[in-house]
Amino acid sequence: MNHEDILQNIVKCNNSKIVLIVLDGVGDIRNRDYNYKTPLEYAKTPNLDKLASESVVGRMIPVSLGITPGSGPGHIGLFGYDPTKITIGRGVLEAVGLGLNLHDGDVAARCNFATISADGKIIDRRARRIPTEKTIELCNILKSIKSIDGVEIIIEPGEGHRFVTIFRSRDKEIDSLIDDTDPQVEGKPPLKAKGHNEASIFLASVVNKFIKKGFELLSSYPSTNGFLTRGFSKKPDILSMRKKYCLESAAIAAYPMYRGIASLLGMKLLSAPNSIEGLFETYIENKQKYDFFFIHVKGTDQAGEDGNFESKVNCIEKVDRALNTLLKNRPDVIAITGDHSSPCSMRSHSFHPVPVLLNSQFSGRDDVVCFHENACNVGGLGFFKSKYLMTLLLANAKRLNKFGA
Amino acid sequence: MNHEDILQNIVKCNNSKIVLIVLDGVGDIRNRDYNYKTPLEYAKTPNLDKLASESVVGRMIPVSLGITPGSGPGHIGLFGYDPTKITIGRGVLEAVGLGLNLHDGDVAARCNFATISADGKIIDRRARRIPTEKTIELCNILKSIKSIDGVEIIIEPGEGHRFVTIFRSRDKEIDSLIDDTDPQVEGKPPLKAKGHNEASIFLASVVNKFIKKGFELLSSYPSTNGFLTRGFSKKPDILSMRKKYCLESAAIAAYPMYRGIASLLGMKLLSAPNSIEGLFETYIENKQKYDFFFIHVKGTDQAGEDGNFESKVNCIEKVDRALNTLLKNRPDVIAITGDHSSPCSMRSHSFHPVPVLLNSQFSGRDDVVCFHENACNVGGLGFFKSKYLMTLLLANAKRLNKFGA
Repeated sequence: MNHEDILQNIVKCNNSKIVLIVLDGVGDIRNRDYNYKTPLEYAKTPNLDKLASESVVGRMIPVSLGITPGSGPGHIGLFGYDPTKITIGRGVLEAVGLGLNLHDGDVAARCNFATISADGKIIDRRARRIPTEKTIELCNILKSIKSIDGVEIIIEPGEGHRFVTIFRSRDKEIDSLIDDTDPQVEGKPPLKAKGHNEASIFLASVVNKFIKKGFELLSSYPSTNGFLTRGFSKKPDILSMRKKYCLESAAIAAYPMYRGIASLLGMKLLSAPNSIEGLFETYIENKQKYDFFFIHVKGTDQAGEDGNFESKVNCIEKVDRALNTLLKNRPDVIAITGDHSSPCSMRSHSFHPVPVLLNSQFSGRDDVVCFHENACNVGGLGFFKSKYLMTLLLANAKRLNKFGA
Repeated sequence: MNHEDILQNIVKCNNSKIVLIVLDGVGDIRNRDYNYKTPLEYAKTPNLDKLASESVVGRMIPVSLGITPGSGPGHIGLFGYDPTKITIGRGVLEAVGLGLNLHDGDVAARCNFATISADGKIIDRRARRIPTEKTIELCNILKSIKSIDGVEIIIEPGEGHRFVTIFRSRDKEIDSLIDDTDPQVEGKPPLKAKGHNEASIFLASVVNKFIKKGFELLSSYPSTNGFLTRGFSKKPDILSMRKKYCLESAAIAAYPMYRGIASLLGMKLLSAPNSIEGLFETYIENKQKYDFFFIHVKGTDQAGEDGNFESKVNCIEKVDRALNTLLKNRPDVIAITGDHSSPCSMRSHSFHPVPVLLNSQFSGRDDVVCFHENACNVGGLGFFKSKYLMTLLLANAKRLNKFGA
């Protein structure tokens, strides 16, 4: 019996409330430009420190040692799903993030408007980052393509220059094993969609026809006369949080991708205000309705990817202040962590373990009295893989029976 | 997808340099005769300590908790191969360590000259540790046995009283599932070679004929009138470091066994001077030619096995001084660790986790400012299995892509 099998056998319902706060990409490494501190070390975080002193802390390995996770695997792990077994494609992520309801068998692709030269080469892969309004206008033009060879085409505009295309087939089988048409560089023509089995070879031919028709429709808009497709994928077959954990769960996340992941796991998507304070207020407003809340803070990752140490510190300090709102309406179990590290000095996701804090009436407390990477090295939780966090949350919420007699 | 599968999918090439320094058997336990310090704690190591203060440290479990590894599993793990799945036999290790080129299907055995009494019992399993020159002379005599029953016999002298025999068959299948003829005690006759399947039963009969003929040829040399065979084994089927990691790698190791392991993984064997300083100089001379360097220091293990605490301290201090040479020509990634522990008070390999230090521009640094077993308990790397070290080295060298969207 593996860990997941044991968990399925011992999970039970009760009325406890669990809040998981994900500071996206919060993990970092000591930065020589800031007195060899990490943003979490550098930030003034009295509330986090006080909470740490009443909690246990540790470090989590998102996927496996040395592996840098994308946002999909990073989050999947936090919710207790094995990121090495479940893959959520980028197209699916974007589609569900936009609130689209995927049917079984649908194939979704992430698309973005691009600028193409007269001789068919890509001048700008992002069409000079046109605003969302322009994308909505262009999508309305593309929407005149209703179906190709019996495959329904559903188009939905996203943020900026991005949109999603869903391919839905009633009669003929379609599959998502299709290479991107985005060559990832400018100066080259877009690639042809290429399938790798019967069902995807058929769909690739549909995609190529869709692209040809689409480019024709866009030809009178010189700076947005084409688009690139990538991340062809199908909805994965996964248990909902309700079925897996007996948890009614809700996501308080602003960004499409994280809302998308949450919706795939059956979480209710709550409206998420722009302010960090607002995220916690949304929790309080909805506290009675759900058992589990996933609160997503994007600013930490954005700052990390921008290499902006001070912005990361600033975001952490905002979270620290807003934490008061949560602590005044304290749930039974609180966890604060990240889905991965995004060190400012690397300007990207990284492989470094993330710090994690766990607080409940039964969490115990260790000797650590602040919340940062190196303090967490010696915490009461040790080093462990992110996929085990949910089990710890359920255990602290007294939602697990004893294993064995 | 397991860790190895993920790694295969994300590994990429670049121009970074990685140096892995293996202090054989360096791990130890606190020794009551030396103020309850370990040799690493007792040694004066200003360079190691400074490097530790700029690095992350941790502890590695060579094979699994409580398992004492031989040199084969210990090293295999360090290079990222699973020591519980890949076995390198002792015969093969010795053969490749002597620079012999094994063909697929060859069976190699480790042999040593022994002194046998008139009634066929072993008087000395090591023939009074005759010098290498004598072994070369005796091997030349045995080399007159070219083949038996169609199986070619290849003999190569090793260090001291040791030699290697390779059995090569063109027509009939041979297998290495043959028990040692060395009974591991004196006062008993050598055992008969015994096979356990058709191909090894056939080869065992060849081995027994080889031993009979060999003993006849040696009968006029009373103190070296026999030999014992052990470690019958075949070359394992493993990916080279180039194929697995996209690394051009080189070994700077003096001892046959470690050279043997390195050559099985496709490493180039560089000449290794006797001095520790010389090992690092060899690295500098060859720095431009390879991506990955395995530097092997034997003295720590030898001292541990001899129970010589001061000699172990002395060897560690030599490494510390020589480290300057490396740091002046700093590679992108440095790791310092051991393949296993060899506590002086145990005079043998042991199961204790080994200390490990990892330094790169992206390693981060933890609160640990010296390099020894107990300091490493609270480092930023935590406790992990040796087989994950290579992934961490590649990640620090920016040789891995992100996993998932």
